[in-house]
Formats: sequence, C-alpha cells, structure tokens
Amino acid sequence: MAKEFLKVVDLDTAVKTVLSTVDIIEDSEEIDITKAVGRVLAEDVYATIDVPPFDRASMDGYAVRAKDTVGVDEFNPREMMLKEVIPAGNVPEHKIFSGECAYVATGACIPVGSDSVVMVEYTERCGEKVKFYRASSQYENVIRAGSDVAKGELLIRKGEAINVRTVAMLSSLGIRKVKVRRRPRVGVISTGDELIEPGEKLEHGKVYNTNTYHLSSKLLEMGCELSYVNTVKDELEDLERALREALKVSDLVIISGGTSAGARDNTYKLFRNNLLVHGISVRPGKPTIIAKADGKPVVGLSGYPGASLLLFEILVKPVLFKMMGKRMKSKRVKARIAHNWVSEKGRTEFLPVSIIDRGFLLAFPFFKGSFSLYSLLKSDGFAIIEKDVEYVREGTEVDVELFSDFLHDLVIIGSHSYAVDIIVSKMDFDVKSLSVGSSHGLMAISKGACDIAGIHLVKNGVYNIPFVRDFKNCVLIRGFNRVQGIVVKKGNPLDIRSIEDIVNKDVKFLNRNPGSGTRTLFDEELKKVAIRKKTSFEKLRKSIDGYDTSYSSHSSIGFGVKNGLGDCGISTYATSKIYGLDFIPITEEHYDFVVYKESLEKKSVRKFFETMCREDIKKEFERIGVFLSEDTGKVIV
Amino acid sequence: MAKEFLKVVDLDTAVKTVLSTVDIIEDSEEIDITKAVGRVLAEDVYATIDVPPFDRASMDGYAVRAKDTVGVDEFNPREMMLKEVIPAGNVPEHKIFSGECAYVATGACIPVGSDSVVMVEYTERCGEKVKFYRASSQYENVIRAGSDVAKGELLIRKGEAINVRTVAMLSSLGIRKVKVRRRPRVGVISTGDELIEPGEKLEHGKVYNTNTYHLSSKLLEMGCELSYVNTVKDELEDLERALREALKVSDLVIISGGTSAGARDNTYKLFRNNLLVHGISVRPGKPTIIAKADGKPVVGLSGYPGASLLLFEILVKPVLFKMMGKRMKSKRVKARIAHNWVSEKGRTEFLPVSIIDRGFLLAFPFFKGSFSLYSLLKSDGFAIIEKDVEYVREGTEVDVELFSDFLHDLVIIGSHSYAVDIIVSKMDFDVKSLSVGSSHGLMAISKGACDIAGIHLVKNGVYNIPFVRDFKNCVLIRGFNRVQGIVVKKGNPLDIRSIEDIVNKDVKFLNRNPGSGTRTLFDEELKKVAIRKKTSFEKLRKSIDGYDTSYSSHSSIGFGVKNGLGDCGISTYATSKIYGLDFIPITEEHYDFVVYKESLEKKSVRKFFETMCREDIKKEFERIGVFLSEDTGKVIV
Repeated sequence: MAKEFLKVVDLDTAVKTVLSTVDIIEDSEEIDITKAVGRVLAEDVYATIDVPPFDRASMDGYAVRAKDTVGVDEFNPREMMLKEVIPAGNVPEHKIFSGECAYVATGACIPVGSDSVVMVEYTERCGEKVKFYRASSQYENVIRAGSDVAKGELLIRKGEAINVRTVAMLSSLGIRKVKVRRRPRVGVISTGDELIEPGEKLEHGKVYNTNTYHLSSKLLEMGCELSYVNTVKDELEDLERALREALKVSDLVIISGGTSAGARDNTYKLFRNNLLVHGISVRPGKPTIIAKADGKPVVGLSGYPGASLLLFEILVKPVLFKMMGKRMKSKRVKARIAHNWVSEKGRTEFLPVSIIDRGFLLAFPFFKGSFSLYSLLKSDGFAIIEKDVEYVREGTEVDVELFSDFLHDLVIIGSHSYAVDIIVSKMDFDVKSLSVGSSHGLMAISKGACDIAGIHLVKNGVYNIPFVRDFKNCVLIRGFNRVQGIVVKKGNPLDIRSIEDIVNKDVKFLNRNPGSGTRTLFDEELKKVAIRKKTSFEKLRKSIDGYDTSYSSHSSIGFGVKNGLGDCGISTYATSKIYGLDFIPITEEHYDFVVYKESLEKKSVRKFFETMCREDIKKEFERIGVFLSEDTGKVIV
Repeated sequence: MAKEFLKVVDLDTAVKTVLSTVDIIEDSEEIDITKAVGRVLAEDVYATIDVPPFDRASMDGYAVRAKDTVGVDEFNPREMMLKEVIPAGNVPEHKIFSGECAYVATGACIPVGSDSVVMVEYTERCGEKVKFYRASSQYENVIRAGSDVAKGELLIRKGEAINVRTVAMLSSLGIRKVKVRRRPRVGVISTGDELIEPGEKLEHGKVYNTNTYHLSSKLLEMGCELSYVNTVKDELEDLERALREALKVSDLVIISGGTSAGARDNTYKLFRNNLLVHGISVRPGKPTIIAKADGKPVVGLSGYPGASLLLFEILVKPVLFKMMGKRMKSKRVKARIAHNWVSEKGRTEFLPVSIIDRGFLLAFPFFKGSFSLYSLLKSDGFAIIEKDVEYVREGTEVDVELFSDFLHDLVIIGSHSYAVDIIVSKMDFDVKSLSVGSSHGLMAISKGACDIAGIHLVKNGVYNIPFVRDFKNCVLIRGFNRVQGIVVKKGNPLDIRSIEDIVNKDVKFLNRNPGSGTRTLFDEELKKVAIRKKTSFEKLRKSIDGYDTSYSSHSSIGFGVKNGLGDCGISTYATSKIYGLDFIPITEEHYDFVVYKESLEKKSVRKFFETMCREDIKKEFERIGVFLSEDTGKVIV
C-alpha cells in the first residue's frame, strides 16, 4: 500500500515537458494605448511620422538664415524685417529670404528659408523691424525634423512588453490603438475535503483554502485572464466535472491538491496516456502533475501553499511567458549562502532566503524551512540547491530566484520587541524586521546577514555581553530595559503570584520557543527556584504543565492567555498592556542591539538609534514598560 | 523681454518642497484579497489563528503515541488497535491511549493522545489491527499547530504593499477582506495650442499630445486613480477653469506644458503666493513648477515628453509614495560610465543610459541626449550627474535610477541594417538593438558597452578591417555584402544615373549623418569623381545642394525622397524596395560585425551568427539585396 508516483522526473525534464505542451497564443486584439502597459505587442511598430514632425524652435526667438548673422555682435547689430509671428501649433505663412526674420515660440515650426533661431534675449523689437545682437550658427536652437525618430524606423519589436516609455513613444507617433496578444485564459481548481474558504468560520480539522487565492492573484498580476475558479471535494466525479468545465474556457488549467498517490488523491486518475509527469524530484513540491487534456496543458500542484507558490514560479510561469510570447527576464542572481545548510540528496531544493548586499549578495536561509508560509512571506527569493548536493557549506555560491527587489535599507533579525516595532514605525525607508528569537538573530548577524540584531540573553546574571564578546565583526549597542514577568488573565483568577505558583498550582503554562531570550530567562529564574526548593531544575521543568510548549513571539503568548489556551505565560509588561492582561513582574532585563560593524555607517542604522533616543519615543516606550538607561545608544562591547 | 523663472531652486530643495506639500492619505477602504495585490495595508495584520490550526499529519500513516513504538523494528513489530480512520478535513472522534492508533491521511488532524505518525509504508493493516515495523520519535511526520505562524503574531505591518505572498498568508489565516489605503486621486491637464490627440490626423506645425498618455499610464501603473484628464489651449482662462475642476476631485494635479516663462506660458500665472518653485536647476526639465492651490499640490511639468517623463520619476513618484504611505524601494544602482561625458555645470543632468553587466555595471550614455524619446525608449535607466560636475571621465561611478530590469541577453549597437532586423526577429530571447551609426557602434563596443556592433566603414577602399585592427578586446566577424547607391523617385523623373549627375544637375540631394558608414562611402565615391574631373573634393562637396543635410537612418532617406524633401539620396537597395523607389547601384559594401571578445562565448551571440548563416534567412536577405559571401560568419581580424 506504499505511495507510488507514476512518472517521477527531475526538474529540468519537468520544465521541458511542460513547455512542450504549449505554443505562443497568436490571437491578438486591438486596445487603447492607455490600457496597454504590461501587454505584449502582436506587431512590429515602425515610425509612421518623423519625431519631431518638422524643424522646431527649441527656444522663444527669431528664425533667420544663419548666414545673415555672420559677424553680428553687440557692437555690430543688424536689423531685419519681421515677416510674421508664429506661435506653437501655427503654420508659417511666409518663406524667409535674406534680411528677413519671423518670431517663433518654443515648439513652433520654423519657416521655410530659415535655418536658425536667435534667442529673444539677444534681440530688440522695433516695430516692423528686429535688431539682432548675436550671431547664430546653422540649426542653433532648432530641433530638426526626424532628429529623435525618423519616419520608417523599426522602433518596437513584436513580442515586447509595453511599458510607460513605450506608451510615450506610441502617442508621440500619433498611435492610439495597438495590436496586442490576447491574455492567456487560465482555470484554477482547488481540491480537498478539508478546505474552508477565507471569510468563513473555521471548523476543527479544516484549513483555509489558500492556493485558489494566491494562484488567482499571481495569474492576474501576470496579465492572465482567470477563466474558471472552483473548489471541489476529493471526489473523482466532482473533479472530472470541474476539469471538463475549466477546459472549455481555458488555455491552461491548474489543479491544486490531490496530486500525491494516496487513496483520496484523484488528480492523476483524471489522465491516462496523457499523464506526462507524476512526481518531480524537488523539495517542496514533489507531488506535481503535468498532463494534457483536450490538447491543453493541465498542471497539478501540491496542496501545500508554500509548495504550490514555489512550483508556480518554477514550472507555470515559464509556460505562461511562452504562451504570451513574452521574452522572460531572468530574476536570478548569484548569492553566497550565509550558513551551512543540509539538503536532501536526490531532490532539487527550493529554499526561501533573505538577501542582503555586502558588496556581494548574501543569502540567509530561513529556519522554518521550505513549507513555511511565514518564511515565504518574509523572504526575498528562494535559493535553488541542486539535486546532487547534500550539504551546502557557508559561503558557497548558489542561484537565487528573486521575488522582487531586495534592496532593503535596514535589515533587523532577532528577538521580538514592541519597542523595536515602535522605532521601525517611525522610519521612512524600507525596513525588513524579522522576529526569530535572540539566538537566531545572533547567528544571523555573526554571518553579516542583517544590520542589527536585537537580543536579550542572560548568562550567570550578565546580559548579552558574554554572547558577543568574541564577535570580531560586530559591536554591542546598549538598548533599553524592559520588565519580564508572568502574564495572567485580567483579575488574576487563579491568583498566580510567582514562578513557584506555576510549579505548585494546577495551572497550564505557555512557554516561549527554545532559543528565545525569554525562555532562557524563565529557565534562569526556574533554576533559582530549584535552589530555593532544594530540588533539581529538571524535576521542576517536568512538573510544569506546558513547559514544553513553544510560542514564537510575545504576541502569541499574550493572545494565548487572553483566549484561554493557557492560564499564564512568560512575557513582557508590554504584552500585558496590549492584550489587556494582568502582570506579575519577575525581573528587569537588558534588551540590547548587536550591530554589524560594516553597517555602522549606514544612514538607516544611524537613524534607527537616533530615533531610539528621541524624547517623544521615550514616552511611548514608558507606556509599554520599556525604559532607557544612561548608556542607551552607546557602544558597550 | 528675457525669460525669467521666478523661484529657481536646486533639485534637493525641489524634492523637499514638493514632499512638504503632502501627507499620507489616511482614508482607507475594505477590499477583497483577490483585488489587493499592489495596494497598501492600512492596518497591522496579526495572526488570528494558528497556522496550521491543529497538529497535522504530513504523511499518510498511523497516528500513535511515540512511546509505544520504542524498540519496534522489522524483527520486533508491534500490533496496535485501529480506533478510526481520519481523512483530511475530518475531526477525530476518539482519544488515543497506549496500544491504540488511528489512520490519518496527509493533512488530517491527529487525534488527542497521539504525538507521532508512522508512515503507511512501515505498517501492515490486518483487519482491526495494524502491525508496526518501525519506531517513530515524538512529532515525527507531524506539523505542529502554530509552527508556521502562531496566533497573535504581528505578521504584516501597516504601510506594506501587498504582494502575492501576502495574499497567501492572508488567505491561510482565513482573512478575506483587508483594509487598504485608498488610492491617491490625480488629475492630469495638458496645455498647448500645438497639441493633437493620438489617433487624429496630424496637421502641419502641430505635434501629438504625448504627456497625457504616458503620465496616465504611469499613474495607473502606480496604483493611482485618474480623477481628471483634460487637454486645453494656451489660454489662461481655459487653464484656470480646468485646474478648478481638477482640484475638486483630486489629491494632486499635474499640469504639463506652459511651465516656462514666455508670453504664452500661463501655468505660473495661476498661482500667486502659493507658487513654491518655478524652475529647477536640472537638465532636462528646468521649466518645472511646484505650487499649492486649495491646499493641494500642483506640479507643472515641461511640455517635452522626455523631460516630463524623467521629472515624474524624480519629483512626482516620491510624492505619490508619500501619499500612499508606501516605503519607496530604491531602484538606484552604481554604474561606471562607458565614455567621457560633458555635462552642464550648475544643473543636475538626467542622462538616459543603456546598462550592460560586465562583472561590474557599465552605463552607456545615449548620443541623442536627454530630450530624446528614442533614447528613453531604448534606455534601461538614467544616470544622475551632479550639479557641480562639468566633465564625467570614462569609468567614473555614477548613480543610475533604473526603469526596470536590465539584464539583456544580447546588446547590439551600431549601424542600421534591415538584415540585422531580420536576424533579431528570429531570436527567442531578450535582444536590445540600437541603431546609432557605425562610428558610435565602434565607440560603444570598444568600451564593452555592447556584445555586437554592426559597421560598414571604408578607408582607402578597404572595409572595416582598418578600423578595428587596434582593438585588443574585440574581433571582427565577416557579415554580408549589400548594395549601396542612389535612391530616386519612381521612374527617375530627373534621370539621375551617377554621382556625377548629382554634381552637375540642379537636384536636391539628401545625405546621411556624419559618422555613418553611408556618408563615408559617399565621400569616397565623390573623391573618385574629383580625381576624374581633375578638381578638388572640397569644391565638389560645396557644389552639391544638400550635401550638408544629416539624415540619421536609411529609412529617413527613403521617406525623404518618397515625399519630395529631396530629389535623390544615398542609401541601400533595401531602402528603395521598402519605399518603392528606383535605385542606381554605386558599389557593393561589406557590412561586418565587431564582437566584444568576452561576449564571444555567450549563447545569444552564437545563436545570432548561426541564424545569420541559415539557408532560409539567406533567401530573406536576397530579397532586400543582401548577399552572404564565403567568409560570412568567420573571424577575419
């Protein structure tokens, strides 16, 4: 009863296979240029007129024959007859002969016979005559007809995507409508008995349908038409009916979910001879299907949102680009991986990474791994670890496919702090702030993967300093003090007063994740209790219901206590304020900042610390139990 | 009567001034997540549920207590009672006690009591019992509740732009609608008596309205609402009325044209005390206005499309980003300028450049200059030459603001050739092909600014070889022969038979631009005539009416003769075919390709030359008078 994929192939073969199922959609339609940005031209565009269309004055002045001004200067002015005045948009009525001139406004057509414009500043009008005080060379202050674009020139090629500059060119040629390729029509079917649509109430055992929404958004963003959208149960007949309907109106159909080979995985059963691929040796996204039905490609993506999102980029995007006949621009860059990474041999891995520019690009893999939506949300792209690679050593160059621009002005990775959130909210540049706990923050900054890491780690009662003393490439900047303690429901119904109470009373405790400073602090305090109670830390630890829980942020602890997932939890005073909880202070701790030395001179880093020390910010801090000290903002290691 | 700008400021001051006129638009609206990509969040998004919402099986298998499998292997299997079967989406009905198990499908909720899933491959079902052949550790094949996102976590900050990954996160949280900032409403007024709308017939002296169209497209692309669009004449009352109407419905109004200080420039006259800036020390775009009316910002941009396009990027985009409360991502890169550039001291210059990646980025300034739409169309971005810089030496690093991605697979700069157009049309990757003449092409390739330069230059009867002999970083590849000659009106009414006829007869001649290979060729032929006629080249040159004209492409010569701008011109056989002209052959010339050595191994370069030698292409060539030789495709220098 083992799961078996029918036609497992490697990534390259999968991409080649899916590309072979489609051709450029040659149908075209004519649209207005104001709606054309992002569309793909279906015809070559030649210049239909000269730009500018006539010899044009580039200044207000007088059009003359340049030869007539030879030798003219302040001391040898020359008078000429004014034949006419030509505003922009008017047609000259007279030809200019020797000794004659015409007034031309900027942008106006210069009259036949003239070949130069003398700026109005160097002339004097005297009734019907104009006095010239300066010589002018041929074509001075004249923009020649066709000098920008000459009629007949091939300007934009068929297959090019139209951008704003293309629209400028088209309108300056007088072209109001262009022939573009029609949009590819794509159908999206999600399948799964466990799916509930966003906006509806979540039932136990169910999850929200995610794939329909991110796939639809992506397809619309790429300029496709969403021709069919449906969510069906894991029943073969339902899926078959949906596929039939989708195929009628689509060029390509995407099915998400049911792509594996289990009992209730129906997607592969839809196809017989035309099942081209079932299983790709990648991670995530192994359960992927490529098939043809009614001569049209059908791609089955994993039901996991992270996997479907990545496989769309790798597998579906190139197909859509091919259908659009759009030349695909590579968003791939080379980056050095920031820390060692163990990959699975035999499968190409797509690894969400954060990118920072250190002269070279440094790619920092996320800890939550490839399936995590959180990692995808916070990443700048994904590294592609080749199939035969098992171990990627720190510093190795890997290919990274970017989601978007990655030039963050400031990257902060470390422990979550509401005070940091406050500072960041005042910044007017692009900040990436990731809450991954103190230890992960330390690790990231030691590799240069961020500019600042906020940490609060204690060893033998000393905060932070022992942890960074050996980091040659970093300094430690004093941050603030904050009060840590126990958060309990409003009114403290179980009358929890101390850590002893958590040990002694029958209460459900919510702990932070291993590696977080707050968990370390709780352990330190628990050790003190053990000494007082003359017992072992291990024993106490095991006696606490919920010690092994692993909440990854202050807010999740606050939310948990608020909503009865537990009776109490370890967190900051700020958490209690934000969630309307009661608070039993345990200790005051130092939350400090490790700064990468190379980043110290960055404007954004300086701005961050300046803001931290501002008087108005100080007041906002105090409201959430955060206090500055005399050393705040100073380098302490 | 000299033009005077009222309040000229430098670029920094202008940007600061315009930014000071606006604030974030705090109004928000609720929209469906499927329409949210590109919009800006008006609220922080916290996780409202755990993701995943419950402990989930990551494989098909049996949920058990991990402790029950200790010591279990192939030789020591253990049987357990099957309590139930749980498909994905179902709620477990039973708690699992020691010795019990439940079948769970991938994605299903594991029952209370169980903490591990043994893959179906390592089990055997026997009626009501299941035999296990493998031990399983705690949480193996289980995705823990909240392990991706913990309920209560701050996930996305107010002010962040929503992308496809944001939509994935929102939908997985069950969020169907989000609060986003409303779009900024922007009005666009174009003014100018000379403007004709695209799609209408061009009258002499008029030009097509370009600014309305590229500004509208850009505003829509940025996610603004176009609240008002109008084109008005250069009459103060018309402009005033339009501005009043626009202000009623807009957050910001852009006026294009009439921004200078001439007699018919009305824009500055609309404002009194609230005229903040009139004139910025930049090039292009000096005539720019910043003002306030009804408490709203009004920006007046130059009527020149190139200038308004650049100033929009520099001046208006930051304002819109500020109104949207969107953190602006920098698209600025450092690049080395490819050749010396003379700039105007006292004005910040925006210089359209082409970018090529040579390990470092190389920025190649266009020859047509800042005002040219052609330059903008073909550029990848613009270099910003600081105000106090007069001379930028080759290799100097400058800031370049990118329009878009700039990774072209193949860059061709050089002489225009219909044959090259044919080859390029067959390429299925991204090609940038610029027609700037042979000499400019040579200059570009000598700096590494392109991969291939097409040239046809002759010295003492020898083609191309003498021009590249000293280029250490390039090779010359033999291209094709094409026939150059005299193009005349159909039927050759003036009976022009030779270059002698151009000298002797009373005809108007159209010449190519200095630096073009075709002009060089004409000079060579004219020198032969001078020898035959025992006179000087100079004398002959001066006797030709139109020798000093300067048409920048074959097509513009063809068009000129066709439309009576001249009686004859120097061009190729292909030109005569395309424009329906008669042709008097003068000589056959070599059109060859200079290739940058580093580019020789590029796939795109190899593909270009392979295509050139294809049999079917050869036939297309012959139709336009282009012939391959035995050496075609071979390296000759």
